[in-house]
Amino acid sequence: LRTGGVRFATLGLAAWLCCFSLEPAQGGKVLVLPVDGSHWLSMKILVKELIRRGHEILVLVPDTSLLIKESENYRTEIYKVPYTKDELDGIFKELKDGVFLEPSTIFDISVDVQRLVTFTTMQVRGCESLLNNQPLMTKLRDKGFEVVLSDPFLPCGPILAQQFSIPAVYFLHALPCEMDTKANQCPTPPSYVPAGFSGNTDTMNFPQRVKNLLMSFLQSYMCTIMYHKFDELVIGHIEDIKSYKELLSHGAFWLLRSDFTFDWPKPVMPNTAFIGGINCAKKAPLPADLEMFVNDSGDDGFIVFTLGSMVPSMPEDRAKEFFDAFRQIPQKVLWRYTGTPPADLPKNVKLMKWLPQNDLLAHPKAKLFITHGGTHGIYEGICNGVPMLMFPLFGDQGDNVHRMMARGVAKRLSVYDVTSETLLAAIKEMIQDKSYKEKILKLSQINQDRPVEPVELAAFWTEFVMRHKGAAHLRVAAHELNWIQYHSLDVFGFLIFIVLTVLWVSLKCCIFCTRKCLRRETAKKKNE
Amino acid sequence: LRTGGVRFATLGLAAWLCCFSLEPAQGGKVLVLPVDGSHWLSMKILVKELIRRGHEILVLVPDTSLLIKESENYRTEIYKVPYTKDELDGIFKELKDGVFLEPSTIFDISVDVQRLVTFTTMQVRGCESLLNNQPLMTKLRDKGFEVVLSDPFLPCGPILAQQFSIPAVYFLHALPCEMDTKANQCPTPPSYVPAGFSGNTDTMNFPQRVKNLLMSFLQSYMCTIMYHKFDELVIGHIEDIKSYKELLSHGAFWLLRSDFTFDWPKPVMPNTAFIGGINCAKKAPLPADLEMFVNDSGDDGFIVFTLGSMVPSMPEDRAKEFFDAFRQIPQKVLWRYTGTPPADLPKNVKLMKWLPQNDLLAHPKAKLFITHGGTHGIYEGICNGVPMLMFPLFGDQGDNVHRMMARGVAKRLSVYDVTSETLLAAIKEMIQDKSYKEKILKLSQINQDRPVEPVELAAFWTEFVMRHKGAAHLRVAAHELNWIQYHSLDVFGFLIFIVLTVLWVSLKCCIFCTRKCLRRETAKKKNE
Repeated sequence: LRTGGVRFATLGLAAWLCCFSLEPAQGGKVLVLPVDGSHWLSMKILVKELIRRGHEILVLVPDTSLLIKESENYRTEIYKVPYTKDELDGIFKELKDGVFLEPSTIFDISVDVQRLVTFTTMQVRGCESLLNNQPLMTKLRDKGFEVVLSDPFLPCGPILAQQFSIPAVYFLHALPCEMDTKANQCPTPPSYVPAGFSGNTDTMNFPQRVKNLLMSFLQSYMCTIMYHKFDELVIGHIEDIKSYKELLSHGAFWLLRSDFTFDWPKPVMPNTAFIGGINCAKKAPLPADLEMFVNDSGDDGFIVFTLGSMVPSMPEDRAKEFFDAFRQIPQKVLWRYTGTPPADLPKNVKLMKWLPQNDLLAHPKAKLFITHGGTHGIYEGICNGVPMLMFPLFGDQGDNVHRMMARGVAKRLSVYDVTSETLLAAIKEMIQDKSYKEKILKLSQINQDRPVEPVELAAFWTEFVMRHKGAAHLRVAAHELNWIQYHSLDVFGFLIFIVLTVLWVSLKCCIFCTRKCLRRETAKKKNE
Repeated sequence: LRTGGVRFATLGLAAWLCCFSLEPAQGGKVLVLPVDGSHWLSMKILVKELIRRGHEILVLVPDTSLLIKESENYRTEIYKVPYTKDELDGIFKELKDGVFLEPSTIFDISVDVQRLVTFTTMQVRGCESLLNNQPLMTKLRDKGFEVVLSDPFLPCGPILAQQFSIPAVYFLHALPCEMDTKANQCPTPPSYVPAGFSGNTDTMNFPQRVKNLLMSFLQSYMCTIMYHKFDELVIGHIEDIKSYKELLSHGAFWLLRSDFTFDWPKPVMPNTAFIGGINCAKKAPLPADLEMFVNDSGDDGFIVFTLGSMVPSMPEDRAKEFFDAFRQIPQKVLWRYTGTPPADLPKNVKLMKWLPQNDLLAHPKAKLFITHGGTHGIYEGICNGVPMLMFPLFGDQGDNVHRMMARGVAKRLSVYDVTSETLLAAIKEMIQDKSYKEKILKLSQINQDRPVEPVELAAFWTEFVMRHKGAAHLRVAAHELNWIQYHSLDVFGFLIFIVLTVLWVSLKCCIFCTRKCLRRETAKKKNE
């Protein structure tokens, strides 16, 4: 299977016939529509694996792309979008600056939603220009792709798949406002599945369950705002499909960058596979200078610090707090930082424009990971068993951090109001209190103990969808039901109606009989 | 992983520490409590694999056992039960005779339930005598088992696991009245998950959904009857646990002999793995005489016929119909039949006391499988891509057959009223109409196309439970909620109360204000 063929032990002629008709696994044609940034970095791992297995890959890239580059391994097709790189950078800058300018409040959700809508509206315009690019669309259609691999965070992939009548494989962590579970009809009882932004774990008391239910209502409302532009795009380009949610429901398979060392246990659907940690399987040795720097740290070890690709620097006054704290610790610090270094840069701190995060965390001397709580970083922390000091910035990062804290493997601070004192105290506590290390090691063991490696599992299911032209046998019939039917409300209504009718008729009969008896008795008495 | 060790690519010192503390995978101690009959035949495959991986196995066997024999490979411990083999055989005989004596009706369910209760009541007595066998229990407790592998169709395994505080791995197809999904908190919306005995598929119209909901209520009622004795046993032997369902909910992992080529797609829980087809992976060459017999069949091929281990013979008049039909077909027939052969046994029919069913079905000349619709046989039909002519007898077999018919790979007849004509017509149709073969081949391809072989997956998860002393990270928090909390009814009630209170207060305020205004106006008018 791993080389793409179908293994049938000794099934004889019948099975030989099957294999014969199942050819396309090796040398299949895959159309890839990634989402830029860290999303692409982990999808690229699957893309590389598919190439290794002999498939032909075409990656569609907007001409404003940040991280998706042309490559020798796969072909790219660059399409024009109606916004410039500067406009895109502007949005990211606003996002980045925001986290240092405002304190974290309950209204963060609406700010997050607004930022997301601004970003996705721009991306929708990009997608529209691709869909209206008739020469390119005709060229793509004629290529005979067997599967579309896409990140449904943006709508272009699912739309193309539907337009070309090709099965879609989705590659994602999760979608905003839980659209993924909604579209895939996955039950998420609000009594024990914590809603986004609720701050709940899977064990809730009554007030927490009230909050959770309210937050899940809020999520549904947020969906209507967030996916409004997506819905318009879908309606404009695909007949018979009325919303993005409905379009997503046609996805053949969902590759979820998650698992139950990160997420709380909850029901799952048959057409999903968990590939959390796909981004931290491969480790390379450190470059010589880095290896020397970290080895120099002796028993105290070192700290890896990054706030992700979106926030590579910070205002000077904020940075000062970090430098001041780092100056007072015996650990070395590797910090991904593009800001201007201070004149009195502490000797134990090394600033880098980019750092091999996973390779560093895999080093036995790595003591602590200071991170913003993106899912990629978190999984690198889990895989490598390194406790995390977390500075959530926006989006799902607050929830991610909360998950890790609830497991006792992380602490949370805020970039807005952190001081060198609070930072120092947190670093000291996390390094001295051995329970953080013990718990993350246990989590790491569980995460690494799996029957199939995530990248193999992801490639298997992508090939499965190619071989069988989808995965229809895993699609639940719930997709054909409306909300009332799904919850059997019509059936309950009907049964209640029947019961009430029977009761009413029985009552009427009783009254009728009683009256008749009474009348007869009265007549009898009169006669007497 | 496959040899039981934990694989950590290059995780450095931290990971080495993990491995160090994770030792017990190889050479673990497994206590096995099987259920007799075909249930044991597939569990034995996992037991053998665990032995191959170096684990020490002890199988607990009642002294009335039918199929569970002592073996060189694993140790057995035989315990006394307070009923004789004749009593047990008597129950099976009644079961067997019943299917030929009565036509199939809607009341079959209650007959099935009654038979099941009679059987399980006897087994509960057996289990009780094991639990009260203090010397044996002490001996077992002292052995230091790391996991209990059991079939929860009978209650002894789960009870022992709880008493010894050892995690339990359940190995089963499904439990009567859907107890497995109920105990494991798996959502099964009755709007698209067909209830047992409902005759529904996953796509239902309104009347079918009404029937489905009613049948799922009936299933819940059946549960209370069927598991009454189990509940008593549990309450009598385990403190703080009030029912068999609650006991089952503590199971660490569920190995389900099912998958979505057999079952309809539906939500699944994280602590389950699908190992449907575990019984048909290994094929051996046929014995020389059988190989000659089936090869002799030429292009017409041969038919495999068995009604399972419980019904190895049938009344003469019934058997005659089969012999008469077989006489008229060009195919050879291999029939597992222990009854007296008729004087005029057709030349194309070979009667056997036991036959290598899976090896026969794997033969390229196998054209048709006549079966009662047990899950083992069905999976052998699916794996090997052989269409099935089915005679459901009792229990879940009606539902199993229905699943296969809905997929277009099977036809159904009844042993009670089959005639040589109807049988002949069915055989001819199924061999001549190529759609049966095409559809079962497609189903077979899907079934065989999996990332991990069922036996490896089953062994992996059993070892996982040993390594991590359970699988707590896969246990949903729903287990801690009661029915009202799970469905958030208390939260809804509270929110409705709040809304109504607010409305009521607002209304009162309005009324109060309106009255005040009116009074003022009246007073004003009066003054005027």
